[in-house]
Amino acid sequence: MWAALAAIGKDPSTGGYHRGGWTPTEREATHWFLDQCASRGLAVESDGLGNLVAWWDPAAAGGQSSAAVLSVPGAMASTGVPSVPGVVTGSHLDSVIDGGAFDGPLGVVSALAAVDRLRTEGFSPSVPIGVGAFVEEEGSRFGMPCLGSRVAAGVLPAEKALVLKDRAGVSLADALSSVGTDPAGVGPSPLLDRMGMFVELHVEQGRALTAPVGVASSIWPHGRFRFTFSGEANHAGTTLMEDRHDPMLTYAMTALAANKQARLAGARATFGRLSVEPNGTNAVPSQVTAWLDARAATDEVLQSLLAAITRQATERAERDGTSVDVVAESVSPIVDFQPGLRDRLAGVLDDAPVLPTGAGHDAGVFSDAGIPTAMLFVRNPTGVSHSPAEYAEMDDCLAGVEALATVLKDLAR
Amino acid sequence: MWAALAAIGKDPSTGGYHRGGWTPTEREATHWFLDQCASRGLAVESDGLGNLVAWWDPAAAGGQSSAAVLSVPGAMASTGVPSVPGVVTGSHLDSVIDGGAFDGPLGVVSALAAVDRLRTEGFSPSVPIGVGAFVEEEGSRFGMPCLGSRVAAGVLPAEKALVLKDRAGVSLADALSSVGTDPAGVGPSPLLDRMGMFVELHVEQGRALTAPVGVASSIWPHGRFRFTFSGEANHAGTTLMEDRHDPMLTYAMTALAANKQARLAGARATFGRLSVEPNGTNAVPSQVTAWLDARAATDEVLQSLLAAITRQATERAERDGTSVDVVAESVSPIVDFQPGLRDRLAGVLDDAPVLPTGAGHDAGVFSDAGIPTAMLFVRNPTGVSHSPAEYAEMDDCLAGVEALATVLKDLAR
Repeated sequence: MWAALAAIGKDPSTGGYHRGGWTPTEREATHWFLDQCASRGLAVESDGLGNLVAWWDPAAAGGQSSAAVLSVPGAMASTGVPSVPGVVTGSHLDSVIDGGAFDGPLGVVSALAAVDRLRTEGFSPSVPIGVGAFVEEEGSRFGMPCLGSRVAAGVLPAEKALVLKDRAGVSLADALSSVGTDPAGVGPSPLLDRMGMFVELHVEQGRALTAPVGVASSIWPHGRFRFTFSGEANHAGTTLMEDRHDPMLTYAMTALAANKQARLAGARATFGRLSVEPNGTNAVPSQVTAWLDARAATDEVLQSLLAAITRQATERAERDGTSVDVVAESVSPIVDFQPGLRDRLAGVLDDAPVLPTGAGHDAGVFSDAGIPTAMLFVRNPTGVSHSPAEYAEMDDCLAGVEALATVLKDLAR
Repeated sequence: MWAALAAIGKDPSTGGYHRGGWTPTEREATHWFLDQCASRGLAVESDGLGNLVAWWDPAAAGGQSSAAVLSVPGAMASTGVPSVPGVVTGSHLDSVIDGGAFDGPLGVVSALAAVDRLRTEGFSPSVPIGVGAFVEEEGSRFGMPCLGSRVAAGVLPAEKALVLKDRAGVSLADALSSVGTDPAGVGPSPLLDRMGMFVELHVEQGRALTAPVGVASSIWPHGRFRFTFSGEANHAGTTLMEDRHDPMLTYAMTALAANKQARLAGARATFGRLSVEPNGTNAVPSQVTAWLDARAATDEVLQSLLAAITRQATERAERDGTSVDVVAESVSPIVDFQPGLRDRLAGVLDDAPVLPTGAGHDAGVFSDAGIPTAMLFVRNPTGVSHSPAEYAEMDDCLAGVEALATVLKDLAR
């Protein structure tokens, strides 16, 4: 499974992945998932946005071909969908721009492998077990992380989601139409009615996990803030340095300030995305737009981090004769996973380590939606993530499958 | 003329101009020029790249339709081309990205208006007078300033020019083919054989000129340097600040250092163009490419400015665990315009002020090619240039036409 999936959407020059939501490469990965489900006789249920859950329900009378479901995008599978809530595991198949192989796909592949293992053992679950693949988790195309789960949970209303635009100016509504999905079907998802519990396995994204497998305690609060630095375009050769209102300088100082403030706060602050106008070599820019990704252990620390960065940006803008405008594009408060479920997982996994993460996940959205939710992490030896160099050892990945199978057996016993 | 030309390639949202070389808007401006020449009976001579000179040669027996020349791009006008070198004036019709209305077009329109004025007066030049329009002066499409004049003068060989690529990856050879010009005709231009002298009128681009019209003394040395900052892509939420190798930080410090060093040296340094990889909100970048535009009063000051900026970039890269690579994309040494010609112009213009400029011009290339060359500047009240806000007063523009007519009358008497 890993070898087949790893080839899809891989950039031969960087070795990284480009699987934005509803792009051809992401669709190819989705078709791969549907083929896998079909070959196992799992009935795939799709919601109106394209979130998928493949059901293993021994109580149901046979499954429906998953391909039939995909050929009518947005339609619900009419047979094979369980009548009682089940335990869902899974993750996502999309990637950041030039991302790694593990972030997302590892959770989907491990879910299928865990189901295979339980079936081979002859295990018969008392409740249905679902394998989920949720769309546009990274937000790399439409700028909204956990887009699929947010829409499914009703946190992001359809009317706000459908008008989101990608960098080429294509709206989500148009992107859906282009793959044959009717935007009218987008909204809170019936999938969640059948999601009694959710467990997401994910590669760890820092170096905090030293055992092969760990259990999540919480997700740090996380915000994306758009900083717009405005000045005055001018000739790079003739304009006296003293006469300039150069927003690039205001931005540059703000990027350094963000780094310093994050260090001081034990938090994270990153400017990784920029847009410069007019972006000409011989012109002082008129505008620099920069996106700040900020995360911290508590909501309070995140707020004070943003305040400190904004204050320094504003002070520098006054000196540069520029202006700065800050818009919060998305802010996710802390997610504390249900302590009882967390401890139950750590227990059946022989006291696996429990640790927080700075990364957002669909599991956080489902947890906030009131679904008992947990996460398993697989060790990342380098801590590198969202990069072609992201990596996990095969032995640790197999330990992750083993752990997930153990957890599912416990939760669906 | 001004009203007609000002409408071509104007962005309604910013009020700025987008006339990259061989783009539809630049071609439209070129057709406007050809129409103007045709209506005046001026024979337009084109070289293989598309540089144009429209000849007013009272000694010639009638002109050829300029439209006929354009319909065979790259062909020479067979009649109406003077048999002796003349005095050429003119400028360019292309613009930087989102540039102003005056930079380039003012020199072309003023040249035509000065010819009109001399003809109305009944002046009969002793040598031909040419009105020139040279292609891709700004280098905004292919990254090479003064592309047209450099190729014409043989400074930039055809084989190096034709492989230059625009941001969409289109080569100059392909861009020429797409407008019906055979790339095989590109090379040193016979236009220059007939260019006995060159006078370019241009809007001033700083605030140094306080009279309506001035004369250029020199063009500052000018370099474009590509800084490539390389680090390691990583997850913006999970990677400890201490574990990062973030090239954005190295770039940010370098941008601030460039500004400071330019102030100390009384020079100019600008980072106005950036490219970030992968440019994702939630990823520490793997690479930041930034273009430095640097200019100074002497070649020595320019060299030491670049050395100081590079040293600070390299030192910061060591701290950040990143690397920095600097490539000179183009370096133009100082241009000292011929003192005799300069003083002659200042004299006939009643001791007009003489001043240097930080901006590059085709006039600098022609001067370096050994053609006696001068420049006239028209006052810029705000100093704003390469920006939609670039502006000159109509009275000053008319004074420019008057001055240019006076100069032509003197040089072609």
